Amino acid sequence: MKLFLAKSAGFCFGVKRAMDMALEATKKYPKDLYTLGPLIHNPQAVKFLEQLGIKVKNRIENIPKGTVIFRSHGVSLRDLKKAKEKRLHIIDATCPIVKKAQFFAKFLYRHGYTVLIVGDPHHPEVEAIQSDIKDGVEVVEDVEGVQRLGPWEKLGIIAQTTQSFNPFKEIVTISLEKAKEVRVFNTICHATTIRQKEAVEIAKKVECMIVIGGYNSGNTQRLAAICREIQPYTYHIETAKEFSPKWLTRREKIGLTAGASTPLWIIKEVEERIKTLKSRNN
Amino acid sequence: MKLFLAKSAGFCFGVKRAMDMALEATKKYPKDLYTLGPLIHNPQAVKFLEQLGIKVKNRIENIPKGTVIFRSHGVSLRDLKKAKEKRLHIIDATCPIVKKAQFFAKFLYRHGYTVLIVGDPHHPEVEAIQSDIKDGVEVVEDVEGVQRLGPWEKLGIIAQTTQSFNPFKEIVTISLEKAKEVRVFNTICHATTIRQKEAVEIAKKVECMIVIGGYNSGNTQRLAAICREIQPYTYHIETAKEFSPKWLTRREKIGLTAGASTPLWIIKEVEERIKTLKSRNN
Repeated sequence: MKLFLAKSAGFCFGVKRAMDMALEATKKYPKDLYTLGPLIHNPQAVKFLEQLGIKVKNRIENIPKGTVIFRSHGVSLRDLKKAKEKRLHIIDATCPIVKKAQFFAKFLYRHGYTVLIVGDPHHPEVEAIQSDIKDGVEVVEDVEGVQRLGPWEKLGIIAQTTQSFNPFKEIVTISLEKAKEVRVFNTICHATTIRQKEAVEIAKKVECMIVIGGYNSGNTQRLAAICREIQPYTYHIETAKEFSPKWLTRREKIGLTAGASTPLWIIKEVEERIKTLKSRNN
Repeated sequence: MKLFLAKSAGFCFGVKRAMDMALEATKKYPKDLYTLGPLIHNPQAVKFLEQLGIKVKNRIENIPKGTVIFRSHGVSLRDLKKAKEKRLHIIDATCPIVKKAQFFAKFLYRHGYTVLIVGDPHHPEVEAIQSDIKDGVEVVEDVEGVQRLGPWEKLGIIAQTTQSFNPFKEIVTISLEKAKEVRVFNTICHATTIRQKEAVEIAKKVECMIVIGGYNSGNTQRLAAICREIQPYTYHIETAKEFSPKWLTRREKIGLTAGASTPLWIIKEVEERIKTLKSRNN
C-alpha cells in the first residue's frame, strides 16, 4: 500500500494562531473563560478546549463576566459593542486574513460600491463581514446566485477566505456583464488555494481519497467536493473511528488530506488506522 | 431569397459624429483642412472626404498650417502638444466613448495601478490611450498575452472600445490569479456589443453571411470572425464590387451586417447588388 499524505493537510496559520491564543488564555485566565461560538470548526478540538476550561456560548448575552475569545471567523460589530458594554475582557483570535476581508468589505462600502461577498451566507465569517455594512451587500455562493442580481454602477467583490477559486472567478466573470465598474479584492486565503491544489494532485493518482475535518467545516466540505470530482471514492470523515475497513478493499493507493481546522493528532490517528488495517489485511 | 439586414449595421454614434464634424469643417474651413490619420477606418468614406478637400496626413509634422481634425480613435498627448505648438486650429472628433476609456486609463495609472488594455497594440485608439501613460501599461489581445504577464499588486483593466466581450472577460478571469486587486472598467462600447449580438443571431439562421467594412477596420474584422465561428460561409467585403455572384448559388437566406465605420451608401449598394444578382439567377 502507498499512502499519499498532503503536506498542506491540517491547521492553517489562522487556526493555529487561534488555538495558541486559546491555550495561552487557559493559563492566564483560567476562570470565566468563554469563546463566542466554537473557536474553530472542529468538534474534537473544541471538546479538547472545553476540557481545559473554555466554555462555548453562542450568544454574547449568555456570557455573564470574565474573558471572551473571538473566534478565527471573526465577530460582528454588534457583538463587539456588546462585549465592550458588558466590560468583558476580549481576546481577539480573528484570523488576520479574515480581518483583511472585513477591511476590504468596509472599504468598498465606504467608497460607494455594492459589496458582493462570494461565500456561504450562513457561515460565521460571512455573517461577521456583512454585519458592518448596513445595506448594499449581497452574498452569493454560485453563478446562479449572481445571475439573479444587478445591474450595478459600481460593484466591489470579495470572497470568504476559504472559498474555492473557480466559482469565485466565474462569479466575477458574470458580474462584468452587470456592472460598469467591477473592483475585485481576491481575499481567498493562499493556504486554501494551496491545500485545494495539492488535494487535486493527490486525488488524480490514488484509488481512494480520505478528507478529514469537522462536518461543520465549510473548507473541509469544499475540499471533499473538489476531490470527489476527480476521485469518486472520496470520503469525508471527522475522526479515525468513522474510517471503514471496506474502503481499502482492492485499493493500494490511498490519498489523505485535511481541512484547515483539523488537528494534527486526528490526522495521525487516521494515518495509523489505515496502516494497521492494511497490514492486518495483508 | 430572404435577406436579413442587421438593424445595427453601419455608422455608430462616434463615427457619425466625426463624419458630421468633418463635413461641417469643409464648409467653415475649406482651406488647409487636414485629418491626422484617416478620420475613420473606411477607405471609401475617407476618399469621399478627400474629394471635399480634406487631406490626410499621418504625422502632425506634415501639417504646415490651418485646421486639423483629430479622428474618432483619439490622439496622443504628444500630437496634441505639437498641434498646439504649431498653433493649428483643432477640431477634436475623438469619440466620447474613447475619451472615457482614455480617462479611466489615466485615472487607474494615477491611482497606482498597472494598466492593462485589452486590445490591438497597433490600433490608433490603443496607441492614443497608451500615450498618456509613461510606464506600467500593458496591451494584450488574448488570453495567451496575459498569461505571460504579472504578477501585480494592483491591476486596472480597460478595453479598446470596439473589443469583443468574450476575450475581455477571459482576460479579466486570468488576471484574477495574478493580482491581489483587480479593478475593471468595462469600456467596451455598447453599440459594439449590440452589433455583435445581432450579427450572431442573424448568422445562426442564414446560409451565407456578408460583413461589410474597411479591411483596415478592427471592429469589422472582429465582426466577421464572430460570424465565421457560427456560419463558415462568411465573407468580409469593403464594397459591392467585391461581392461574388457564386456566393448566392443554392443559398436562399443571406445575412448582411456592417462595421461601425461603414457608410450607409455602401451597405445599400451591396444590398442592391445581391437583389439584382438573385433576380437575374431566378
